Amino acid sequence: MAKRKVSASLPDYRFAAAPTSLQPGASPKSAAPTVTFDLSRFDPGARPFSSGDKATDKARVAELAVELDKLQDLFYADRRFKLLVVLQGTDTSGKDGTIRDVFGEMSALGVRTAAWKAPSDDELAHDYLWRIHEKVPANGEVVIFNRSHYEDVLVPVVQGRITKEQRAQRFAQINDFERLLTETGTTVLKFFLNISKDVQRERLQERLDDPSKHWKFQVGDLAARKSWDAYQAAYGAAIAATGTPWAPWMVVPADSKTQRNLMVAMAVKEALLRLKLRYPPGDPSLSKIKVT
Amino acid sequence: MAKRKVSASLPDYRFAAAPTSLQPGASPKSAAPTVTFDLSRFDPGARPFSSGDKATDKARVAELAVELDKLQDLFYADRRFKLLVVLQGTDTSGKDGTIRDVFGEMSALGVRTAAWKAPSDDELAHDYLWRIHEKVPANGEVVIFNRSHYEDVLVPVVQGRITKEQRAQRFAQINDFERLLTETGTTVLKFFLNISKDVQRERLQERLDDPSKHWKFQVGDLAARKSWDAYQAAYGAAIAATGTPWAPWMVVPADSKTQRNLMVAMAVKEALLRLKLRYPPGDPSLSKIKVT
Repeated sequence: MAKRKVSASLPDYRFAAAPTSLQPGASPKSAAPTVTFDLSRFDPGARPFSSGDKATDKARVAELAVELDKLQDLFYADRRFKLLVVLQGTDTSGKDGTIRDVFGEMSALGVRTAAWKAPSDDELAHDYLWRIHEKVPANGEVVIFNRSHYEDVLVPVVQGRITKEQRAQRFAQINDFERLLTETGTTVLKFFLNISKDVQRERLQERLDDPSKHWKFQVGDLAARKSWDAYQAAYGAAIAATGTPWAPWMVVPADSKTQRNLMVAMAVKEALLRLKLRYPPGDPSLSKIKVT
Repeated sequence: MAKRKVSASLPDYRFAAAPTSLQPGASPKSAAPTVTFDLSRFDPGARPFSSGDKATDKARVAELAVELDKLQDLFYADRRFKLLVVLQGTDTSGKDGTIRDVFGEMSALGVRTAAWKAPSDDELAHDYLWRIHEKVPANGEVVIFNRSHYEDVLVPVVQGRITKEQRAQRFAQINDFERLLTETGTTVLKFFLNISKDVQRERLQERLDDPSKHWKFQVGDLAARKSWDAYQAAYGAAIAATGTPWAPWMVVPADSKTQRNLMVAMAVKEALLRLKLRYPPGDPSLSKIKVT
């Protein structure tokens, strides 16, 4: 296998407004940070972690998926932490593919995907975080949000159903909510899968041309594509306002599926290693028992 | 009926650290306010809203309960708002009695009581607000929390299971959480039912002396009574830190059941009137239809 030449480090792609770490008991302001964040500076076609050879990169993703499976087994046994992975991105940005390729080796024992449809009457009658909070991970659990509460600061903004002021209020509410989660033992990893408009056209056309992919296509996808610029602006604003020290965003170049998988897998692995997981201490008397 | 002489106004018993009103879009700091609050200044035997005649006061409570029933009917039809009533207080402080006497006339259609047992394994594996958020009111709903998330800043403090720093963090989390609720249409009314240690002794003894009341008695109640001062201090600290403009506390003199009921009923009525409730506009064509 060719030696991998890595030309960038993960933190280059991580966005957190203030790089201070959060101390228990500290009470940082949760208001949306006012920072400049320009999504267009991020190249969806970048290959920062590529070895230069596609087959090698793919093999590396497969290796990482196996490593992540082992780490998740340990994470589940350890039971001290919770892991929340938020996947956001436009249609065809590769959320499903990421779940399959990066998290696919992990056991269903302790791993769960959460997704939400258009809100029901009962959900609409509650605050928008109500149905989100319900699905957060428990100790030992890995939960992947396939879209998330961030839809509530994207779609209604583009459709003009909430004002900028209401959006700012939601940003602050989301920061508070994610702070609660991290302060109570959750690692929150947020990935924006960043594709170009051209790649989206190719992928949508592919879905239309292949009847076996029609189930993934919805007419609404074309309407959303017409609002491409508005959605990019909305994503940019959301990442700027909710990239916090406790729950930073990572902007993932996602025009290449392999590069996308590679970066997400590396980031999840890094996060799990940082937890210094361990199997719970065994009961020494157990090893003396003979099962007859 | 004798003319009622009211010697105090409700705001005298309301505790909010900063008397500013919350504007949508504003992002006040959610950190626990550092204020001095001395619970012992509040007399559990006070009768600020009494007419001076017990029968008259009782009749007034019954009247108010009927008025609250009518207001709740309107509240349910209106569907624009949510009402959360938090009842806290030591054992025998009258939480159950308040629910029966003040909210008893309201219809089960749109009114719900929520209470929590010792947390299950699954609940313990989540943040402590997870099981609370699940039970918050929907639009048109009145929900009464018979004890609440405040137990999580009382019992573990008195039992030494969390530090002062962890408590401060929880205060800030609770303020954030209640701010989310109010910003999304919930009126949050928090009542501390304030009884004296003497009255608690009488009521506990009553429960022991009357076999038909044994179901309300638990041996743990006597242990908690031994920590009376620690609980009073913990309540004082909680009220000081979480009496916010968006979710103020009301300290209710509760040695007299009638006075307690009177004050809670008045406060709930005032809150409902402030919402300027209305039946949703009718469809004018409906009144022309003849049902045959």
